Amino acid sequence: MSSAPTTPPTNPHGTVATQGPVLVVGTGLLGTSLALALSASGVAVQLSDTSPTSLALARDMGAGRVRSDGDEAPQLVVVATPPDVAASVVLAQLSAFPEAVVTDVASVKQRVVAEVRAHAGQEVRRYVGSHPMAGRERSGAGAADCDLFVGRPWVIVPDGATPQAELVVRNLAVDVGATPLRMAAAEHDEAVAAVSHVPQLVSSLLAARLEELPESALALAGQGLRDTTRIAASDPRLWSAILVGNAGPVVGLLRALREDLDTLIGGIAPAAVDPASPDYTAAGRAQTIAPGAVGAITDVMGRGNTGQARIPGKHGGAPRRYAEVQVLVPDTAGSLGRLFSDVGAAGVNIEDFAMEHSAGQSAGIAMLSVSPAAAQPLEETLEEGGWRVVRL
Amino acid sequence: MSSAPTTPPTNPHGTVATQGPVLVVGTGLLGTSLALALSASGVAVQLSDTSPTSLALARDMGAGRVRSDGDEAPQLVVVATPPDVAASVVLAQLSAFPEAVVTDVASVKQRVVAEVRAHAGQEVRRYVGSHPMAGRERSGAGAADCDLFVGRPWVIVPDGATPQAELVVRNLAVDVGATPLRMAAAEHDEAVAAVSHVPQLVSSLLAARLEELPESALALAGQGLRDTTRIAASDPRLWSAILVGNAGPVVGLLRALREDLDTLIGGIAPAAVDPASPDYTAAGRAQTIAPGAVGAITDVMGRGNTGQARIPGKHGGAPRRYAEVQVLVPDTAGSLGRLFSDVGAAGVNIEDFAMEHSAGQSAGIAMLSVSPAAAQPLEETLEEGGWRVVRL
Repeated sequence: MSSAPTTPPTNPHGTVATQGPVLVVGTGLLGTSLALALSASGVAVQLSDTSPTSLALARDMGAGRVRSDGDEAPQLVVVATPPDVAASVVLAQLSAFPEAVVTDVASVKQRVVAEVRAHAGQEVRRYVGSHPMAGRERSGAGAADCDLFVGRPWVIVPDGATPQAELVVRNLAVDVGATPLRMAAAEHDEAVAAVSHVPQLVSSLLAARLEELPESALALAGQGLRDTTRIAASDPRLWSAILVGNAGPVVGLLRALREDLDTLIGGIAPAAVDPASPDYTAAGRAQTIAPGAVGAITDVMGRGNTGQARIPGKHGGAPRRYAEVQVLVPDTAGSLGRLFSDVGAAGVNIEDFAMEHSAGQSAGIAMLSVSPAAAQPLEETLEEGGWRVVRL
Repeated sequence: MSSAPTTPPTNPHGTVATQGPVLVVGTGLLGTSLALALSASGVAVQLSDTSPTSLALARDMGAGRVRSDGDEAPQLVVVATPPDVAASVVLAQLSAFPEAVVTDVASVKQRVVAEVRAHAGQEVRRYVGSHPMAGRERSGAGAADCDLFVGRPWVIVPDGATPQAELVVRNLAVDVGATPLRMAAAEHDEAVAAVSHVPQLVSSLLAARLEELPESALALAGQGLRDTTRIAASDPRLWSAILVGNAGPVVGLLRALREDLDTLIGGIAPAAVDPASPDYTAAGRAQTIAPGAVGAITDVMGRGNTGQARIPGKHGGAPRRYAEVQVLVPDTAGSLGRLFSDVGAAGVNIEDFAMEHSAGQSAGIAMLSVSPAAAQPLEETLEEGGWRVVRL
């Protein structure tokens, strides 16, 4: 551990535990965002990148100083390179700085950890894997943001590191506003495959079915379709690197999903009698509405109910139940703003919010989640204020 | 067509074109909601149901009068029974009321239309299929709501009906606030399979993968998982009836999706080398990160990009682009309300809104969609008001 930071800490998140200098290798979105957050807290940050353009941009944004050979050795090195070179850069940093703790931020951990272990000796005890679960649609230093990590989980994979090294990376996560979560590399990769990688692919598979759909059919789209396909807008280039790096867990889950899909298709298919065919009226309802189809559907949907209910709600707890207040919002400028202004004036806290829209409508329905006790008084207040409340 | 309504119209949506009496057969969610909306507009509504309990509840809610044998013959009969009996009830109503237009509200149209045609003579010209695209999580008369159809698409399937009959049903849709869309039965069923039925099943298949996931993995869940699995909370019993009734189009799309899934699995699988195996280091990066895997992923994701971009935005137009303002919202009572109050006071209209939460965090990020011109002034106003704006 080094001396105190050279400039007084100004971190809005509180006292800073990270001791500089910190060397950030790779000034893309994650590296630059991290450097900005640390610099804002008064930690001395050194920057390095194979691209002089990206490096200059990060420096000019105030992320830190470009590292030169004569500079003080870093206490902590953060490797924020593309994932396919992360392991070799980690190894290079471990030998360049024999006292430093080294971490990387690659979104898949098992391969990086295995490659570092295969080539490192005792210095592997100074290596701690990281996965800050933050990102955005755009990439590069220009999209960087010192708040990128605020409120996000930051997975720490200590796998063989010393407790001291782990603590340094834990402090880093906390200092930039993230919530550290400790996991083994394999456990992490299985987890992100299930909660992030496979949902991404499934959303894309579903949206791919819309490619050739007639416009008239798309006009019937509702909120369900919008929600299930929202992440299908993600960048294929960025994601293919992530998904290939986690191919094992991803393929395992996709195969399990395909088994369920096969069972479902096998169950529904017998009910798919063409209503125009003579079979239809001959077979009659009892045979066409095959009990097997109902069984296959209720099985998958029942398990889906169970799985969906397990997703933690706000703040990582069990999903809390709120009462829903639905209000008709005309499509005129300021309507939604006025609604929230009125809700704010009524002293009611909105726990969650969604809009429901459909094709061709001139009004939407605002769905406000509030505490059950607040729902009825709020409905009455809003109605007195001239709002059209949709009663459940 | 009959005389004017017996009571003056009070429809908040404007002038009422529907002429009563209207007989609503089936007092579940849809039938009762429709009856409530018509009654509120001053249209005479007659109610009928095989369940005396449901019928009495609908009547007591103000949906209309229970029909008796001596009552005036209806101008329009709306069949809002469960879908498996819709066709036979339509046929019975066509012969009971030789002057009336008859419609049904079943969410799958081809089977109902085919069955009505197979058994009806010339009277089929008074039958018009309907699918009001409205619903909610709860069912039954008790969940009914006269605003249920406001702003929703209402598909009209005239298939062989007279223009006069079609107009009666079109007026009905407009009178309750819906937007009529004309489609053939087969076209409708293919459309709802793609925009509603298959997304439902895919969301359930994805959520079913979470059933046995460790809690630690679920703690990494983000907004992407929440969005893709939200509708997996739907009722399996209700959906199995709908899906079995549309088995042909649903199975066709599921098979196409399985083909894409097979190609994807076949493409990624070669990259799934166990990092702990000797193969891993021997094979090296060039072989493990198989170009075929990248190709398979970018193909599906690229097509997903195209499909997702085709979904119409608010009001049925092409998706509008708004600027996004991100604000850190601490988890204290009233925070979100205060934010919206401040946005409202700044005179800015919020076009859309989402919250981003993660496990263990004590703050969320509110993502406000506003017109591009309003974004920067709003960011400045909010910062002056003490809000932490997350700059993009």
